[in-house]
Amino acid sequence: MAITMYSAGVPTFQHTLRNLIHILEKAEAFAQARKFDPAVLTTYRLAPDMLPFTRQIQIACDGPKNGVARICGLEAPKFDDGETTFPELKARIQKTLDFLATITPEAMNGTEDKDITFPVGRDTTRTMKAEAYLKHWVLPNFFFHVVTAYDILRHNGVDLGKTDYLAGPQKG
Amino acid sequence: MAITMYSAGVPTFQHTLRNLIHILEKAEAFAQARKFDPAVLTTYRLAPDMLPFTRQIQIACDGPKNGVARICGLEAPKFDDGETTFPELKARIQKTLDFLATITPEAMNGTEDKDITFPVGRDTTRTMKAEAYLKHWVLPNFFFHVVTAYDILRHNGVDLGKTDYLAGPQKG
Repeated sequence: MAITMYSAGVPTFQHTLRNLIHILEKAEAFAQARKFDPAVLTTYRLAPDMLPFTRQIQIACDGPKNGVARICGLEAPKFDDGETTFPELKARIQKTLDFLATITPEAMNGTEDKDITFPVGRDTTRTMKAEAYLKHWVLPNFFFHVVTAYDILRHNGVDLGKTDYLAGPQKG
Repeated sequence: MAITMYSAGVPTFQHTLRNLIHILEKAEAFAQARKFDPAVLTTYRLAPDMLPFTRQIQIACDGPKNGVARICGLEAPKFDDGETTFPELKARIQKTLDFLATITPEAMNGTEDKDITFPVGRDTTRTMKAEAYLKHWVLPNFFFHVVTAYDILRHNGVDLGKTDYLAGPQKG
């Protein structure tokens, strides 16, 4: 089967978001085992002017949700950014997975040359062809926030390895 | 133009590696302006058992180099891991870009269902179809190391923003 716009995007988001839920479960268990407030992790920033963990997760969800919706010409569901706990953040990821599950290959395939206009910052928009938008904007932006969330946890001692990120829970 | 195995991979690696050179230039300038030894940054780890900055860059280069070579059935050039300075690391990225520039779309396209066997850890290999290998292994692994390198610099106060990572040097 030839690679398509759908196959180049949606399964990657789904795979990585599922692994992200697994990573959050390990972080939650770590806080519980060490008996510290999980908010230490969810509010942590790697630099004072970087976004905290909760925002990294919210944006990691909104990137593919809004990106895929724009490419398909669909209205994306809007999620409130009220999450503060690991269970709430996991639910946010699950809602994003539920939305991605509604996307059909037919809605996304063949859109390579379609112009996509999207907001950049507060007052500007940018327009890219859908293929470039997917590859050079949505995917790198998605990984940016997922990996930064991982790095925040790792920096704080959560027992994670790259395999948790690449492959999720390990069997046996 | 329909998306292809080549277009889904090589331009993304090239684009992000070029932005990574720009990020390293900003880090180098930061160390120079603040008059501290750049090795503080190049040897920095976000956790005691994470790889230091130099290794993040070396692996960010080797991932696409070896991954693309495997998909195309080519022998990848081998690079020594002797880099310790920003100029050496930038040269490593440039050598990777030089190799990627030799890859033709014809060598990579149509390989979606080809079995790719690759090393995982010291003693094991894994086999995946080339499309899955590209999307679920090579790309996420590449972004893992690029973003972790970025996070190391950001954590150390280097004046970077997500735009440096997504779009490289800004004009005007």
